[in-house]
Amino acid sequence: MEFKVHKLANGLTVIGETNKNAESCAVGFFVRTGARDENVQINGVSHFLEHMVFKGTDRLSPFAVNEHFDRTGAQYNAFTSEENTIFYAAVLPEYLAQIAKLWIELMRPALRTEDFNIEKQVIKEEIAMYKDQPNYDCIDRCRLLYFDGHPCGNSVLGSEEAIEAMTAEQMREYFAGRYAPNNMVAAFAGNFEWSEVRDIIEAGCGGWEGRDVKRRLADTRGSRAKNRIEKANLAREHICLMSPAVSAQSNRRFAASLLSMIVGDNVGSRFFWELVDKAIAETASMEFAPMDGTGVNCTYVRCSSENTSRAMEIVGNIFADLARNGVTAEELTKAKNKVLSALVIKNELPMGRLVDLGFNWTYLGQYRTVEQDVSAIKAVTVADINALLKDYPLGEFAQFSLSPAQGA
Amino acid sequence: MEFKVHKLANGLTVIGETNKNAESCAVGFFVRTGARDENVQINGVSHFLEHMVFKGTDRLSPFAVNEHFDRTGAQYNAFTSEENTIFYAAVLPEYLAQIAKLWIELMRPALRTEDFNIEKQVIKEEIAMYKDQPNYDCIDRCRLLYFDGHPCGNSVLGSEEAIEAMTAEQMREYFAGRYAPNNMVAAFAGNFEWSEVRDIIEAGCGGWEGRDVKRRLADTRGSRAKNRIEKANLAREHICLMSPAVSAQSNRRFAASLLSMIVGDNVGSRFFWELVDKAIAETASMEFAPMDGTGVNCTYVRCSSENTSRAMEIVGNIFADLARNGVTAEELTKAKNKVLSALVIKNELPMGRLVDLGFNWTYLGQYRTVEQDVSAIKAVTVADINALLKDYPLGEFAQFSLSPAQGA
Repeated sequence: MEFKVHKLANGLTVIGETNKNAESCAVGFFVRTGARDENVQINGVSHFLEHMVFKGTDRLSPFAVNEHFDRTGAQYNAFTSEENTIFYAAVLPEYLAQIAKLWIELMRPALRTEDFNIEKQVIKEEIAMYKDQPNYDCIDRCRLLYFDGHPCGNSVLGSEEAIEAMTAEQMREYFAGRYAPNNMVAAFAGNFEWSEVRDIIEAGCGGWEGRDVKRRLADTRGSRAKNRIEKANLAREHICLMSPAVSAQSNRRFAASLLSMIVGDNVGSRFFWELVDKAIAETASMEFAPMDGTGVNCTYVRCSSENTSRAMEIVGNIFADLARNGVTAEELTKAKNKVLSALVIKNELPMGRLVDLGFNWTYLGQYRTVEQDVSAIKAVTVADINALLKDYPLGEFAQFSLSPAQGA
Repeated sequence: MEFKVHKLANGLTVIGETNKNAESCAVGFFVRTGARDENVQINGVSHFLEHMVFKGTDRLSPFAVNEHFDRTGAQYNAFTSEENTIFYAAVLPEYLAQIAKLWIELMRPALRTEDFNIEKQVIKEEIAMYKDQPNYDCIDRCRLLYFDGHPCGNSVLGSEEAIEAMTAEQMREYFAGRYAPNNMVAAFAGNFEWSEVRDIIEAGCGGWEGRDVKRRLADTRGSRAKNRIEKANLAREHICLMSPAVSAQSNRRFAASLLSMIVGDNVGSRFFWELVDKAIAETASMEFAPMDGTGVNCTYVRCSSENTSRAMEIVGNIFADLARNGVTAEELTKAKNKVLSALVIKNELPMGRLVDLGFNWTYLGQYRTVEQDVSAIKAVTVADINALLKDYPLGEFAQFSLSPAQGA
């Protein structure tokens, strides 16, 4: 393993960790932009723009883009979150140069009005489809409630109204402001030659113009609002709780991951034994979601209407017991093993490694080896987790419930 | 990479491919049993039994099983198909011995009547849940139609009636007949010591008694029946076509994989460009499913009711054009790159490697390196694929349609 970094004059950073034992390699562009960088008029534009990237450039039609990917056999995709837009591909080493050059071209998309209008329908269908998934809808609405005006509450998909009213010109403006080279990282992992990929990025991206890019960064403890909406055709109660947690930059993020594993992993956690194994809830999970300058713990419970108050009482008891007595040494040991094995196995594949590599650079401006993360996780103590529980009480949550319509 | 194999006196085979560069290792038990080895009275027992394995042994309660897995941080699971039941885990090397011993214990489960009765409810809920997924239900019904009495048509989940009527004693009998050591392979991949795992298997499984195990093996060209059922609450038409294909043992399996990629991959295939990209169908795929002694090509299309006849006409035209003109050299090149990159990337991780290792042994009684498979794929010619199209015409299919209720 060898790590290299190179910053272009326009601010774009290229990073790469070579692993000569790997059989494949992965390449990705990490753009530091997402729903939190939008306003209400253009809510959903980051995700919509991610789709538009695949519509090609002045030189490449949508058909040609697809053909180019196809020809190399690349496994490729993209995703947009509240604060990142990532484009990535895993490929056999002999096709890496080709795929890297293709992504470079696509990072300067044509954003044709005609394609924009066609894709708008696809986006609206995607919004409708997700609205039909109560778990997704419930968590999305809880996020809005918790963040209470903070931009991290913005929906990634956006509202149908915002998408409907959006113009291609608005998207082009957003693109120019956010896809600036100084707001992007190009990352490589696996089996490749550093000097080759560095030169490809330098040649392909060196001409892009830097720009002043800002993000409103403010921590928030969130609201403690409660809301409940009834919906026809639901058979189950969906409940989401959000409470404050440390940020992606915090040294306490490892402790926070371990805590969420202890409380809400899908097997073997407190939620599992108290709610799922006892058949009070069908699903009960807690996830720590670290973000840029802030973070949340997100609990999600699905159960029958009859079991709802019982389930919420149990969640309350678990939170109260943790606040009072903290976690046990045995719980911590088990959680460490789970977090460690997930980390090591994920990072074993170039594609998995790329994600950690890119995010560490995006959030920390830092290279970290897998071994450094392993050590940091091993070093977390029961006292660290209990201190976290004091500083970020799980009981101080916003709550959103999506319920079956009464008398339905 | 080094491959080792050892056969116990009772017929159980241990295989292992060590990769000292890997960070993790994977272990699995491949039991050569599934829905095709059932009869109508016990349809669903293989899958139900897979669940029961996690209920523990005389020594281990369900709680203890969970705790044991949890403590090591293993990523573990199991799945049942028409002809295999697989139990597997990926874990950090220091926990491999522990996890291998745990699986060995679990391969001789208690099958307590009390646990059986509780788990029966879970299985019935799982059946109900899948019945609610029209894509799954449609493919399941098409399989039954195509196989027309051949045991490969048996549903993996079983019918609610068979599950309801099933007794714990019937499951114990099935278990004794099918989980015989001579019907099982223990496989290891990744970073481990061969002599250590061989000794663990020998010590743990050496006392199991061998038994005469049979499977009805007969190829079939399937039926060409057509059926259509209307269902309330459906918004879309779901159509499944099945036609004969080569078996998992056939040397032509690589050509068959490439053909299905050309015809029905989710992007860049003929189905994609003619049906999905033109928005005539929302989904259109073809998958080659090789089985023990037989095989099928399975096409699945989802579209609006208005587009159904148009979509089926296009599918018919694609099949007819392939029968007449075969595939092009360019299509084959692209398909090879896709199949190769998927193969190499999957096998890069010990968990992915384990699956290919285990299946090659189960189906072929043979060790194959990734490089051998890569070479075999590279060697396929346009003529090979066109010969396959002649011997296994795509147009000779059984068809099952699940349609929105008229006037709904």
